[in-house]
Amino acid sequence: MDVVIIGSGNVATHMSMALKEVDNSIVQVYSRTLDNAELLARKVDAEPINDIDAIYRNADFYIFSVKDDALPDIVSKMPPTTGVWAHTAGSIPVSILFPHKRIGVIYPLQTFTRKREVNFQDIPLFVEGESDETTALLKTLAETISQYVYILSGKKRCFLHLAAVFACNFTNHMYTLASEIMGEEDLPFHLLNPLITETVAKVAVMDPYEAQTGPAIRYDEKVMQKHMELLNDSMKKDIYSLLSRSIHKTHQ
Amino acid sequence: MDVVIIGSGNVATHMSMALKEVDNSIVQVYSRTLDNAELLARKVDAEPINDIDAIYRNADFYIFSVKDDALPDIVSKMPPTTGVWAHTAGSIPVSILFPHKRIGVIYPLQTFTRKREVNFQDIPLFVEGESDETTALLKTLAETISQYVYILSGKKRCFLHLAAVFACNFTNHMYTLASEIMGEEDLPFHLLNPLITETVAKVAVMDPYEAQTGPAIRYDEKVMQKHMELLNDSMKKDIYSLLSRSIHKTHQ
Repeated sequence: MDVVIIGSGNVATHMSMALKEVDNSIVQVYSRTLDNAELLARKVDAEPINDIDAIYRNADFYIFSVKDDALPDIVSKMPPTTGVWAHTAGSIPVSILFPHKRIGVIYPLQTFTRKREVNFQDIPLFVEGESDETTALLKTLAETISQYVYILSGKKRCFLHLAAVFACNFTNHMYTLASEIMGEEDLPFHLLNPLITETVAKVAVMDPYEAQTGPAIRYDEKVMQKHMELLNDSMKKDIYSLLSRSIHKTHQ
Repeated sequence: MDVVIIGSGNVATHMSMALKEVDNSIVQVYSRTLDNAELLARKVDAEPINDIDAIYRNADFYIFSVKDDALPDIVSKMPPTTGVWAHTAGSIPVSILFPHKRIGVIYPLQTFTRKREVNFQDIPLFVEGESDETTALLKTLAETISQYVYILSGKKRCFLHLAAVFACNFTNHMYTLASEIMGEEDLPFHLLNPLITETVAKVAVMDPYEAQTGPAIRYDEKVMQKHMELLNDSMKKDIYSLLSRSIHKTHQ
């Protein structure tokens, strides 16, 4: 398949490399910044462009992987093409790609970091199209790069993205706060690794509700009070208090 | 070594099984409930007791692994012995074991679940004693069951426990909330597994601060607004809002 990539960020990079690897042709990489377009284009043997009017008109797929806020502007400037347009965002409707006719979504449920390789074959991809035909085309393309391809409505994709914010973004922030607390006492963060690993290993085999431990579920007020006193930062205090109340409420 | 275990919960169970495995003798298991004492005693070939006065007076170690709130009461009822007394709590000072003379702590940094086996050798143990001699004795005992034994002050142990609440208990609660959001849309929780696994794999090799992704760090207000609207529960809304603000503040 001939694919044009619009965007050069983490998702664009990882997805276009995965597409290239299974012998799709990445015809062009577009970015507003030519340097960024070149950086990715070099990796996937594509033409770098930063002029949207120079876009190749006869590709099979145009993958829009730019910041959510930048999507409407770039879509409005796109020249007409016949291929399928798809974006990769969790919480944006397909309709953002109107008035183009053949439109859809390939949403990869993963946290991407530039310098870190991921095995794209293991990443769940959620596909939606404006018609059965477009859905089928996007599913076929997605299945070349992942073993786990699901058709999912835009509404459910939003909830999936929301759940991912809790399971990934908020979880990682808990690690950041733990790391700050450790750092202030000169305790190396890696001491927490066995605990973090086991916490995650548990939810692969049991319901997280069943896996909950700690002072809040025991409602051990003395320990919680002591922890609140140890926290020297009002934001961390607010988080400790709110999450402890939420754990208690959930398990009452 | 001859060890008496006071308590029969998750920590008592896992630690006494680990001690037994490396040929320490678990002389007795005490629990207020004889059934519970028997359940654990059978596993470690010990005498079950529920009468604190029946406690064996000549053990080398007495490990107190009961709920934090139950500790003062049980300590006050203990008959005099010569061996070392140690508790296993993260946020309780050694001094709770006064007026006994040889006192200390072995704090295992792990989340224990009854039916789940853990390799105790991989669990970091944090040891404190009232004197260098007691500390050395506890360190020697701890080193029979774990490769990772550290001497740590009570003050630092409290901060370690606090960091563990963020890294384990709060993280697991994020999984619970994600699971609820998924469940309401009939999306199976296991779809999140590759994302959860990668989130954790990242912090084993990079600073969690560097690993942060998601709408809050990008300050993508439209997505955050949309997510707030999708949440039908005021506690989840409060958590979404507070953690998004905290991520934004941390990364400003």
